[in-house]
Amino acid sequence: MNTKIIRYIWGYVLRIEAVFMLLPFIIGLIRHDEGFMWFLIVSAGAALISIPLAFRKPTDTVFYLKEGCVATASSWIIMSIVGALPFYLSGVIPSFADALFETVSGFTTTGASILPEVESMPICYLFWRSFTHWIGGMGVLVFLLAVVPMSGGSHINLMRAESPGPSVGKFVPKVRHTARILYIIYLFLTAVEVILLMFGGMDALDSIMTSFGTAGTGGFGIRNDSFMSFSPYIQWVVAIFMIMFGLNFNIYYLLLFRQFKKAFMIEEIHYYLLIIAGAIAIIFFNVKDLFATPSEAMTHTVFQVSSIISSTGYSSADFNLWPDVCKVVLVILMFVGACAGSTGGGIKVTRLVVLIKTIGKELKNYIHPKRVSKVKMDGKPVEHEVVRAINVYFITFMVIFFVSVLLISIENYDFATNFSAVLATMNNIGPGLNLVGPTSNFSFFNDFSKYVLMFDMLAGRLELFPLLILFHPGLYIDTFKSKMHRRAR
Amino acid sequence: MNTKIIRYIWGYVLRIEAVFMLLPFIIGLIRHDEGFMWFLIVSAGAALISIPLAFRKPTDTVFYLKEGCVATASSWIIMSIVGALPFYLSGVIPSFADALFETVSGFTTTGASILPEVESMPICYLFWRSFTHWIGGMGVLVFLLAVVPMSGGSHINLMRAESPGPSVGKFVPKVRHTARILYIIYLFLTAVEVILLMFGGMDALDSIMTSFGTAGTGGFGIRNDSFMSFSPYIQWVVAIFMIMFGLNFNIYYLLLFRQFKKAFMIEEIHYYLLIIAGAIAIIFFNVKDLFATPSEAMTHTVFQVSSIISSTGYSSADFNLWPDVCKVVLVILMFVGACAGSTGGGIKVTRLVVLIKTIGKELKNYIHPKRVSKVKMDGKPVEHEVVRAINVYFITFMVIFFVSVLLISIENYDFATNFSAVLATMNNIGPGLNLVGPTSNFSFFNDFSKYVLMFDMLAGRLELFPLLILFHPGLYIDTFKSKMHRRAR
Repeated sequence: MNTKIIRYIWGYVLRIEAVFMLLPFIIGLIRHDEGFMWFLIVSAGAALISIPLAFRKPTDTVFYLKEGCVATASSWIIMSIVGALPFYLSGVIPSFADALFETVSGFTTTGASILPEVESMPICYLFWRSFTHWIGGMGVLVFLLAVVPMSGGSHINLMRAESPGPSVGKFVPKVRHTARILYIIYLFLTAVEVILLMFGGMDALDSIMTSFGTAGTGGFGIRNDSFMSFSPYIQWVVAIFMIMFGLNFNIYYLLLFRQFKKAFMIEEIHYYLLIIAGAIAIIFFNVKDLFATPSEAMTHTVFQVSSIISSTGYSSADFNLWPDVCKVVLVILMFVGACAGSTGGGIKVTRLVVLIKTIGKELKNYIHPKRVSKVKMDGKPVEHEVVRAINVYFITFMVIFFVSVLLISIENYDFATNFSAVLATMNNIGPGLNLVGPTSNFSFFNDFSKYVLMFDMLAGRLELFPLLILFHPGLYIDTFKSKMHRRAR
Repeated sequence: MNTKIIRYIWGYVLRIEAVFMLLPFIIGLIRHDEGFMWFLIVSAGAALISIPLAFRKPTDTVFYLKEGCVATASSWIIMSIVGALPFYLSGVIPSFADALFETVSGFTTTGASILPEVESMPICYLFWRSFTHWIGGMGVLVFLLAVVPMSGGSHINLMRAESPGPSVGKFVPKVRHTARILYIIYLFLTAVEVILLMFGGMDALDSIMTSFGTAGTGGFGIRNDSFMSFSPYIQWVVAIFMIMFGLNFNIYYLLLFRQFKKAFMIEEIHYYLLIIAGAIAIIFFNVKDLFATPSEAMTHTVFQVSSIISSTGYSSADFNLWPDVCKVVLVILMFVGACAGSTGGGIKVTRLVVLIKTIGKELKNYIHPKRVSKVKMDGKPVEHEVVRAINVYFITFMVIFFVSVLLISIENYDFATNFSAVLATMNNIGPGLNLVGPTSNFSFFNDFSKYVLMFDMLAGRLELFPLLILFHPGLYIDTFKSKMHRRAR
């Protein structure tokens, strides 16, 4: 394994984080917030450590998928630890496990919080919390790709390890260029949302923080009641942007290059919108009598569906009190998740469509055993290897899911709480049901359960395997062996 | 499609059921039970209808997997409807949906009941209820194979459609012979259990009914409190036989032919026993303080673990009141299920072992992309096609699972009830959690939900695809087309 390049990437990631941390520092400085100095101190520390790590670019900058995975997973862990330090050192979050939970939840765009209330928090900390969503949404290593030149072909292995969904392949030839365009689209959409929110009477900083949470499909709110007390206008703007950030970014890319026909023909997006429409119909029918007017019921229905399927996790109403069929619809949406190539979490629409088409193909095979049929997406047959990878992904997801439920159930909370806590973290949603419902938080879990849930958040965000191989003994045995081998020579 | 042979099989299945129904009739006759005449009437009716259906053996007795699936799935539906008639006509179960639910639950060896109490039921009905477990456990069509000569090679397609698990292939050359041996083993083990139970003071009829429920891994109890009031001796005998009927029957087959080494080397059985041991350890640790003595705690732990993993569903204690971690362990055991080639339900140990090995292989591929590794079972590489089929099975299982949860959640019961009701029926267990816990029953669901759960029971018992293709329009379009084609000629 090329350990030198991994160390180099660590250095770069720390450097980027050090720069990002200056933003909350400046905000705190201007507003004289409590404890704002810690951002400067941690930023300086991170910058200092990054110097020896990224001092000299290694001569061998080629790396394979293995290095891509290890670099990504380890960078996310380092990033989270460093990002948690200001919370912990300042005493804003007194327990380190809690501070780390909040930061992992931020970077992975989960939005599950251990804080019972946020309105008393210094603004610079509230800002950092929302900012982690925005950073994590697009991916730090994709950002790194956009700014650091690296030897051709290596990019793709980094991008594959960090990007949500199975469809990065298309961009291979010009990854760096693409990464930049994606960041520009991301920035542009965020800015549009900020402007629209300010137009609705939100102040600038609140609009920015809200937009960070939407863009990253994160879900950390800036008020104690999330979105319940905002105006319907604000709720609709956020709802529509949540859906938009859950779209496959290919659509914006294609629109930008005026390939309108291709943009509107992306099959995944059709299914995504269809699922949203279906979910809205079922939920609206069941909650329409719970609200004063149908329009109010519709606002909350659309908001909740958009929030959950895009894996954001903002809430405009306490869906924990809605009829159970609505909760089951939301639970299913949590599994579904957003489109591949978006900032959202979940299993991803594209994977589920392929999985369901596989079932159809299997049935056809029973009826016509001699006819060879292939699963198709966007009119083209899906390669056997892609189908296989999706199958394995789904299985791995389910295994991690149930092992996690088992591990946190040791604390003996009820089944719906355990089940939905894992569901909400692994799919990077935020709130679940019962004790982890939209009006509650995750603080009551013990540290062990919190670390299990942090693992789930990272596993969900990094699409399982990059994180899992970090825990595979084969990785270390191998690296150790090859080192011994080199020394022997 | 060879519709003639399917009709012929229907006729034979009805004839077998007519014969089987004479047993509860005789018992009722001897005991002067209320409504025993209905068994004779329905039996005569079934025999009558079977005459034109199975009057002449079709000249073309060859059939493919498609015909095997259609014949199996439709036979099971017919069998269940006919089996439900005595309950309904006699008024023992006044609603037809309820009577059908109880019978489907019986034949599929689920053991989920709509009856609030059973002790007041006429014994001949109680007997029929338990007898359906025993018939369904081994499979009616396997029985048919054992007694009806059919053209070589066709057997396997029937057997594949009805037998639990993916491992029938081994027996291809002499299916009929094998089917007979399997029935003899089944009969022998049942008889041994009857004797051991009578030795513990149970009367003959109760011992037979209890053994039917154990052998088929069914779970219909003969007392209102299932096994709570029986002696520890009885509980231990039943617990051990539940584990034994959950074993891959290959082990008995091999033992019978004195291939001891091979018998004890079946990898699936090692994992099955390992999972049982692990589950017992976790649950015992958590319930040991709930009972008066450790030995009592151990008895109930072993009983419950054996009952759930073998998919029987007898209960010696109300595990709904146990700590939540125990419930999660039991929920996971419900998914796991028994060994392939047993009478038990669930996803099956062999499938899960292959699935988990697939994950390990995937991780290794990330670390050593150039090394080709294959998933192995029993020391031999598992064929690609088998792995693919297992993947598709698992995915289909999960999709049916969540669609069913959604459909029954329309009634707005709580999440744990909906989730575990589907879990308990689809894996052919019986009791679930909360409202469908071991001391409750399924009667409170409306008819729509009951039909959904009946579908799940049949889907689980017939390993999904044989039942699903019955609902695939392609099947009928095809048959219709080929009929038109023949007529046109």
